[in-house]
Amino acid sequence: MPRDGTATRTRILDAAEHLVIENGYAATSVDQVLSRSGSSKGAFFHHFSSKQQLARALVDRYVEGDLAQLEGSLEATAHLTDPAERAVAIVRHFEDLGDEIMAAQSNCLYVAVLTERQLVDDGTSDEIVRAVETWRVRIAEVLKEALAATGAHDVDADALADHLFVTFEGAYLLCRSTGDSRHMRTQLATFRRLLQSLLGPTT
Amino acid sequence: MPRDGTATRTRILDAAEHLVIENGYAATSVDQVLSRSGSSKGAFFHHFSSKQQLARALVDRYVEGDLAQLEGSLEATAHLTDPAERAVAIVRHFEDLGDEIMAAQSNCLYVAVLTERQLVDDGTSDEIVRAVETWRVRIAEVLKEALAATGAHDVDADALADHLFVTFEGAYLLCRSTGDSRHMRTQLATFRRLLQSLLGPTT
Repeated sequence: MPRDGTATRTRILDAAEHLVIENGYAATSVDQVLSRSGSSKGAFFHHFSSKQQLARALVDRYVEGDLAQLEGSLEATAHLTDPAERAVAIVRHFEDLGDEIMAAQSNCLYVAVLTERQLVDDGTSDEIVRAVETWRVRIAEVLKEALAATGAHDVDADALADHLFVTFEGAYLLCRSTGDSRHMRTQLATFRRLLQSLLGPTT
Repeated sequence: MPRDGTATRTRILDAAEHLVIENGYAATSVDQVLSRSGSSKGAFFHHFSSKQQLARALVDRYVEGDLAQLEGSLEATAHLTDPAERAVAIVRHFEDLGDEIMAAQSNCLYVAVLTERQLVDDGTSDEIVRAVETWRVRIAEVLKEALAATGAHDVDADALADHLFVTFEGAYLLCRSTGDSRHMRTQLATFRRLLQSLLGPTT
């Protein structure tokens, strides 16, 4: 693909991502995407065969970024040998990014996509399921060790790992409903504090 | 209002609530609502001046049901004199309702409404803000006493109360993405277990 083509594709995806996150998928028209990205209909259909195919490309790119954030948090805490300390540090890593995350966007693309049954049924949301499962597996690896070390044998590591995804998505909705983006940081801090109680005073 | 009129209005609202929760607001047309509810256009516009006014009525009714659930949980636990025990019992009350909640609907109306910027900007979501704030105030009343009694003075009762809303909304998204409705119960149980760690072994 020539360099200009890639730049146009990225510009279209950026515009579409903003519009879908802000206004919803069904409420976003191809014409709005063209207008915001300054692209022609010809350029659009050169890159995407339909609005539905654009949605799929949007989700693929977003999931890639999301999983890069996950790996970033694991790398940033890889030096911590105590698993409980590392589990708490992973949540704190996102807590510190909370304001930055909300400055970039007012909602999660996942929320917009999952709201539309059509996008769930036609497989557009399949990559979201892969993201959810990757978060669960990667975070649960750390949590399993931490829970074993602290003796909290009644807690399911997978469900506790899912609670990080749940906190993110729920906090997006809380920010969106109240118009106050500081809730993202506060809710991640709340989960971190609860995790510290569970994993013991050393964290 | 004659009895028949009320029944028609309820039937239209039931159909619209199902369609908006399943498919999204923008993806739901008035014609679909008419078809599902078996109503005429004339009956629809007798009760609602527009699709937007229908959305407002939907939100109002949903918030009323939501706040009734909240008060139900407070009444069901009013006999518990220990505030920490009562706080945990409130979450367990919803945990026990988790499967029932997900049997009735696959997502939260709040998610569908908040996804559409138009509905946020035109004030349709204002009642959702009132619901969020009522949950916060009512749950924080119990949590404040519980936190004071357990000495966890670094935890903000409002943020911890908001975490119940966050758990509900995030769990809806988790259920929707994975297609597994059991996550609602599991995530409420995870929050309950974390709360027990925070509030001490007596709970």
